[in-house]
Amino acid sequence: VAVVGPGRADAAETELAESVGRALAARGAVLVCGGLGGVMEAACRGASGSGGTTVGILPGLDRAQANPHVQVAIPTGLGEARNALVVRAADALIAIAGEWGTLSEIAFAMKTGKPVVGLGTWELLRAGRPVEGIERAGGAEDAVERALAAARSA
Amino acid sequence: VAVVGPGRADAAETELAESVGRALAARGAVLVCGGLGGVMEAACRGASGSGGTTVGILPGLDRAQANPHVQVAIPTGLGEARNALVVRAADALIAIAGEWGTLSEIAFAMKTGKPVVGLGTWELLRAGRPVEGIERAGGAEDAVERALAAARSA
Amino acid sequence: VAVVGPGRADAAETELAESVGRALAARGAVLVCGGLGGVMEAACRGASGSGGTTVGILPGLDRAQANPHVQVAIPTGLGEARNALVVRAADALIAIAGEWGTLSEIAFAMKTGKPVVGLGTWELLRAGRPVEGIERAGGAEDAVERALAAARSA
Amino acid sequence: VAVVGPGRADAAETELAESVGRALAARGAVLVCGGLGGVMEAACRGASGSGGTTVGILPGLDRAQANPHVQVAIPTGLGEARNALVVRAADALIAIAGEWGTLSEIAFAMKTGKPVVGLGTWELLRAGRPVEGIERAGGAEDAVERALAAARSA
Repeated sequence: VAVVGPGRADAAETELAESVGRALAARGAVLVCGGLGGVMEAACRGASGSGGTTVGILPGLDRAQANPHVQVAIPTGLGEARNALVVRAADALIAIAGEWGTLSEIAFAMKTGKPVVGLGTWELLRAGRPVEGIERAGGAEDAVERALAAARSA
Repeated sequence: VAVVGPGRADAAETELAESVGRALAARGAVLVCGGLGGVMEAACRGASGSGGTTVGILPGLDRAQANPHVQVAIPTGLGEARNALVVRAADALIAIAGEWGTLSEIAFAMKTGKPVVGLGTWELLRAGRPVEGIERAGGAEDAVERALAAARSA
Repeated sequence: VAVVGPGRADAAETELAESVGRALAARGAVLVCGGLGGVMEAACRGASGSGGTTVGILPGLDRAQANPHVQVAIPTGLGEARNALVVRAADALIAIAGEWGTLSEIAFAMKTGKPVVGLGTWELLRAGRPVEGIERAGGAEDAVERALAAARSA
Repeated sequence: VAVVGPGRADAAETELAESVGRALAARGAVLVCGGLGGVMEAACRGASGSGGTTVGILPGLDRAQANPHVQVAIPTGLGEARNALVVRAADALIAIAGEWGTLSEIAFAMKTGKPVVGLGTWELLRAGRPVEGIERAGGAEDAVERALAAARSA
């Protein structure tokens, strides 16, 4: 399961991301992310601290760019194009808050038919009407449960 | 300038995309797109028919995948990850209508500081409030004018 | 047809690359290359000066990185991984002299079944025996003729 | 450390690759590879069976493509262009035997200044003279020792 979200996060987003990481580890799911700070780092801290496995797919060429809770760091040198690889490496996406990079990951996942669960993330309209697709979760546990269920049935 | 939009388009979207292509060619701008059908093909037809240059950055490995109005076809074999290359190849983005692939291109452009002009494309909210960033145009001519002005001042 | 070779070239290599560019233009073939200096620049100068079309697939994000004879510059931001795209964009490869980047392009082409014509480029051995695959040409005209013939029959 | 080699291997190559995997695990090094069969599978089996960590960076989109000894599978959907990512993910390369894909990885590593240790792999000539760069090892243990020493001093 990929956890995506911005490289800077406020206290509430950090707490949420860390809880998502813990819940993923408790379920035995591997956490894949972009490997940097903010939401990514908090999720890795939560997962790694609970005995889970964390993978960081980095934009740059330097493994040292990874946050300290990434166990397997993959420096790609692809820049933001690595967002497509984060999505491809996962069976489902949990999007927390989110800036433009997060939006690109949501779009890639939807385009390629992967389930997306949102926690306070982007809302999307076309022609003034909400667009279906992102499943909204009520909290960290709920998000992980929905993502794993969706990944299994996908 | 990149023109992005879905691979299937209705009559109004097709007409709009073709007008954008014609207006780009009239201004001497190179049209970059994903090289397939729908909005991409209509824009290429407009540009190519008015003496403009058209470039198609394709998801697959086969040049024959390009629509017949692409003059320079670049088969990448990167799948949807080629959307990042469409954005990188351009100085500004004109987004027409749009499905998930288009949204990923808007997100990449915004993330990397490239101007995005929209024609009936996605609207984006965070925490219930509209997010600034996409410049809304009133028509094909207006979109091209805004995109070229933004590219120059970027 | 892709022309590949190092970013620095001596006088003889430069002359050879320029002749290859001219011969490609004379046959109406599009020249694809990595867009930088040395062999790439000389080949583009030859092709562009003879009315041919030149495409440069750049490693960086900045179109200004292209040599002045590239007509269509595609900044990829993929670094050396763009070598795979140079090969994918072409139906045949002409390798002139060559450093490690050139070798990666030869290897990609051979791996994916694209014809490679060599002009003073790498020789390859396995277990002490020469490995077949690169067709050796006697000069610029001969290389272009062989590459176009191989591309047609591929 | 990346271990690279062909997707089909004879008995001697398989034995050698498995020994390299075991030796890497014994030294606590993470094994990165292309995730498929042959040399890649044998190396993963050796490392995984000795308590090591194995990462497979796959060409396709399907995690099931990975050999059964890959612990962290990264489906990239980039095709052979993923060879560049295998090299970027590692601090040193051990090349065993080798077909064209292996050659592309050797070339990428040399181009980007990463140490390459060879076991019965390609020999390279330019203008009839051997080209320096690949360090030749006498066996699996020797290769791992040289690769780790080179990675540390790089």
